[in-house]
Amino acid sequence: MNENQRLESLLEALSSEQFDRVRALLSELHPAETADLLESLPPKARVKIWDLIEPEFEGDVLAHTQDAVRADLLEHMQPQEVAEATKDLETDDAADILQDLPEELVGSVLLSMDAQNRERVASILSYHEDTAGGLMNIDMIPVRADVTLDVVSRYLRQLGEIPEQTDSLIVVDRQNKYLGLLSLANLLTRKHAATVGETMTTEAGISADTSAHDVAKLFEQRDLISVPVIDHEGKLLGRITVDDVLDVIQEEAGHTVLSMAGLGEDDLFAPVLSSAKHRAVWLGINLLTAFLASWVIGRFEDTIQQLVALAVLMPIVASMGGVAGSQTLTLSIRGLALGQINKNNSRALMFKELAVGAFNGLIWACVVAVVAWLWFKDISLGVILGLAMIINLIVAALAGALIPLTLKRIGVDPAIAGGVLLTTVTDVVGFMTFLGLATLFLLPG
Amino acid sequence: MNENQRLESLLEALSSEQFDRVRALLSELHPAETADLLESLPPKARVKIWDLIEPEFEGDVLAHTQDAVRADLLEHMQPQEVAEATKDLETDDAADILQDLPEELVGSVLLSMDAQNRERVASILSYHEDTAGGLMNIDMIPVRADVTLDVVSRYLRQLGEIPEQTDSLIVVDRQNKYLGLLSLANLLTRKHAATVGETMTTEAGISADTSAHDVAKLFEQRDLISVPVIDHEGKLLGRITVDDVLDVIQEEAGHTVLSMAGLGEDDLFAPVLSSAKHRAVWLGINLLTAFLASWVIGRFEDTIQQLVALAVLMPIVASMGGVAGSQTLTLSIRGLALGQINKNNSRALMFKELAVGAFNGLIWACVVAVVAWLWFKDISLGVILGLAMIINLIVAALAGALIPLTLKRIGVDPAIAGGVLLTTVTDVVGFMTFLGLATLFLLPG
Repeated sequence: MNENQRLESLLEALSSEQFDRVRALLSELHPAETADLLESLPPKARVKIWDLIEPEFEGDVLAHTQDAVRADLLEHMQPQEVAEATKDLETDDAADILQDLPEELVGSVLLSMDAQNRERVASILSYHEDTAGGLMNIDMIPVRADVTLDVVSRYLRQLGEIPEQTDSLIVVDRQNKYLGLLSLANLLTRKHAATVGETMTTEAGISADTSAHDVAKLFEQRDLISVPVIDHEGKLLGRITVDDVLDVIQEEAGHTVLSMAGLGEDDLFAPVLSSAKHRAVWLGINLLTAFLASWVIGRFEDTIQQLVALAVLMPIVASMGGVAGSQTLTLSIRGLALGQINKNNSRALMFKELAVGAFNGLIWACVVAVVAWLWFKDISLGVILGLAMIINLIVAALAGALIPLTLKRIGVDPAIAGGVLLTTVTDVVGFMTFLGLATLFLLPG
Repeated sequence: MNENQRLESLLEALSSEQFDRVRALLSELHPAETADLLESLPPKARVKIWDLIEPEFEGDVLAHTQDAVRADLLEHMQPQEVAEATKDLETDDAADILQDLPEELVGSVLLSMDAQNRERVASILSYHEDTAGGLMNIDMIPVRADVTLDVVSRYLRQLGEIPEQTDSLIVVDRQNKYLGLLSLANLLTRKHAATVGETMTTEAGISADTSAHDVAKLFEQRDLISVPVIDHEGKLLGRITVDDVLDVIQEEAGHTVLSMAGLGEDDLFAPVLSSAKHRAVWLGINLLTAFLASWVIGRFEDTIQQLVALAVLMPIVASMGGVAGSQTLTLSIRGLALGQINKNNSRALMFKELAVGAFNGLIWACVVAVVAWLWFKDISLGVILGLAMIINLIVAALAGALIPLTLKRIGVDPAIAGGVLLTTVTDVVGFMTFLGLATLFLLPG
């Protein structure tokens, strides 16, 4: 059975209330697949399926579920249940789930945990979710520098287990100060008699307040599997593993795409009212800018009255400006997000985008001029349309490059506010130049 | 020195032609940082810096550079140089670089390699870049099931080295058929006398023709570090490591953002002409749809002539439809990319989006109706504007949900074509309903 068939039989079983069959089908899924399934279900079916999942898998499933959907599921759980479900998870996953709980419930869940778990989870909760501290887990094996590899090997065999995603043991001194890494590869290939100190590599640990974004960048640049997290005194706090970094990258990427459309959450099936309310804000802001554009047009009512062709053609100027500008804007937002744009090259980027805008402005100005001329049999109308297009495409390039840079400088996410500001500029400038030029040069007298 | 300061002194040294200082500063950078630097430089400075990089690091830097920038750098290299630079890379990285070369040069580079390297690289080049085969590397350690862990340990110590990103040795039979994985963790914690066969886990390998997208999904779901790649007979071909999966996820994410703006490449500083040409296509397509909208407006020239307020207000209807529609579109495109939308839930999604659209249509229709009434002292104009807005927001929701589903079904990337189609619908429907309703109900007689 492939994924789709399995999903279909599951939904069929659910709608015909064959709950045993649903349970059987669910038990064949990996927790991550169950999480994907829950994300793709409308709220009602989602809750039904959730109730049929064996309690011992609930934690793993939650750990793999997106924030928005997870928050929805957590609403249906008692603090005791949440504590039970998160008990056997890695500490970072447990903390991650608790961060999606309403604040007043976090306390009760922590109280339902046994003392050791409580302390571990609380230590991570003290860091912000989007920092190295919030991403780290504390399941790791620290070793001392002065013992031999042979001793370490025997110690591991005695432990009988190594935490998942462990590529290195972490070398610390008596004060728990981070010294370096002993990779499993080196442990397996170097001489038994060598000491950990001789064998370890001394990569730098990262500070607990490093942003998740910078952590992800480091993993990408250095091809890491795990990295130790240290406090400001250099003491070992925990480690971050690549599986959590994958999630960071995936979320950041989604964040840009969604923000640019004014979407905040990521739940396909968020309740209608909450979706509508969230998007209403965005539409309201857009409405303000649309009215601003209308007001500009309104200044030229007399002109339009005398030459209705202007009303027919004016959306073209605004639309082309919007599209060209959003190309520059997208490139800039992405460049900023990847850290490729800085004050050393922003000027070069702006000039390049201006050149691209001018080039395309020229080409398409000729095309629209000819079309307008043939359509309305008026060569000067065509020329004015072409001129307005060139101006708007150059302004669009400028705005597309400057808006995100400025927003970034004043600490606003360019992905969120950039698009609305850009369209405001291209609409207003587009209508104003076209109608303004027409008023100056086309009207009799 | 932080990254920015380092970059500044580097650029300063470059512009004052202190090449020894540039070389010294470059030598302090990790190849990945050098790659980031090259990506953020305009073409001229980029080539200058590239010429100052020590030949032995060229390969590592290329391996960390984005496709578009890499292609630019490769243009400045001789086949012999490329062969030299890729010699010491992991096979998958070398193959990846060769895939960015013009086809006629790949042959000469392969010929400049020694026989063993040539064979290894060629074996990967035979798979498409975006499949498991194209992502895999062949640096791995296969072991037999019937030997003991003790023997494996001694063998590793004799080898003296384990390929990077190795979390498991791969168990194969005499015919090189893939049997299972022996994790380094198990090798270190289980009894010496146990055999590999008893200790190994039997995770499934993935087929060489699996898409890169599905490979990334598997890594995310299962928190993998590496996975074996097998052919259709179950024979071991290579393995994929998580560092390459990070790149896949990062590229896919960028691809969606860039495609939605009609951008193909990812090079901030692509030459003006090539950028302009690429974007001209997109602008040309948009121009066609803008003319279509204009043509619709043109059908109502007489109406506008009699009531110029219509020209003033009509962009509002189109703009709000475009924004609301692109919210639904973005959500759908992302849902499809993440595999969250399928034929079982697409109907539920559409109804939800329709409800959201209708809800927001109603709210903002009231607002625009009142504003238009107060502005133009004409209550029926306000009502018509509100009505057109409701209709366009409902149509926008429908289009935003149906367009990507339909494109996906016919095999077109919704991220590329979705936006243009959507705006065409919301512009045409917006202008047509507003001006049409006005013609029916507002004109005298």
